[in-house]
Amino acid sequence: AGNKSPEYARRGMTLEEDLNQSNKYYLNHGVAVIHKKPTPIQIVDVHYPKRSAAKITEAYFKQPSTTDYNGVYRGHYIDFEAKETRNAASFPMKNLHAHQLLHMEEIQRHGGLAFVLIRFTASQQTFLLDATHVLHFQANLDTYKRKSMPLPYIEEHGQIIAMGFAPRIDYLKAVDHYYFSHL
Amino acid sequence: AGNKSPEYARRGMTLEEDLNQSNKYYLNHGVAVIHKKPTPIQIVDVHYPKRSAAKITEAYFKQPSTTDYNGVYRGHYIDFEAKETRNAASFPMKNLHAHQLLHMEEIQRHGGLAFVLIRFTASQQTFLLDATHVLHFQANLDTYKRKSMPLPYIEEHGQIIAMGFAPRIDYLKAVDHYYFSHL
Ligand SMILES: [Mg+2]
Ligand SMILES: [Mg+2]
Repeated sequence: AGNKSPEYARRGMTLEEDLNQSNKYYLNHGVAVIHKKPTPIQIVDVHYPKRSAAKITEAYFKQPSTTDYNGVYRGHYIDFEAKETRNAASFPMKNLHAHQLLHMEEIQRHGGLAFVLIRFTASQQTFLLDATHVLHFQANLDTYKRKSMPLPYIEEHGQIIAMGFAPRIDYLKAVDHYYFSHL
Repeated sequence: AGNKSPEYARRGMTLEEDLNQSNKYYLNHGVAVIHKKPTPIQIVDVHYPKRSAAKITEAYFKQPSTTDYNGVYRGHYIDFEAKETRNAASFPMKNLHAHQLLHMEEIQRHGGLAFVLIRFTASQQTFLLDATHVLHFQANLDTYKRKSMPLPYIEEHGQIIAMGFAPRIDYLKAVDHYYFSHL
């Protein structure tokens, strides 16, 4: 004890845990209001015991029709999906569902910011990649002759995100850099 | 049959059903991207049967920490809560939780549009009331000497919403009128 490096200390934290902590930080510090949407559940059966809370006894996970996170930052609508991959050198596009890609396209059409946060768990590197580049890759799978986005593509078009303690993953700094550096 | 009035035909539709249909209409017609957030559920136990979908066997409803609907419209972040009341002449403030009021305040601080849609089921009138007026009433319960917002207060500060078929409840027209009539 005492000589645990920051890298060591945060091992085992998932991207979702990092984001939840960071969103709480952003909220408490007046930076932004961004929440994870609840997991969509199909409820089949509920019991109502006397004098206690309703108990769901049969339910199933539904496939999400949108992305995981949304909210407001600097007066802008923000919407993103967070994904981890154990692949070292590419991101498999099958991790993004067709309706999620469509959703991101719609968001952009209406003036919102849409992107994907991709973490490579092996290297612990996390990138912000604007939906434009995700959609472009998806539309050109045949040209690229592969179904995984190569790391160099993500490095070229994305924005790497610094890790820290508070917030643990300062992805809004990457948003500033990518979308608002002209300000 | 044949002489059912529109008013008759839509009896029994809840505000949520009207909103879901209208949001679908808005999405399909390229007007806006607004979704209802899934109900937050605390999952306690899940079974993983062989060769079939994971089954949630114990779960409970959690109190939502935000509002019901959000999305993007005209480049703006939009966030609202939808409520029905059977009261004829006032809206009980206890229908809005403290964290929902706080959430709406935060949204406004960051440049989003926040409001409540209130339906009086007896008269089938639905109003859009900007969060500013909801928060003002809540902050002055002592002055108003009541815990229900009177209908005249809602009529004065809110915007009534026309009912139709497609979309069933054109609340974005009320948004246009209230927030964008200067354009
Ligand atoms: Mg996800
Ligand atoms: Mg509600």
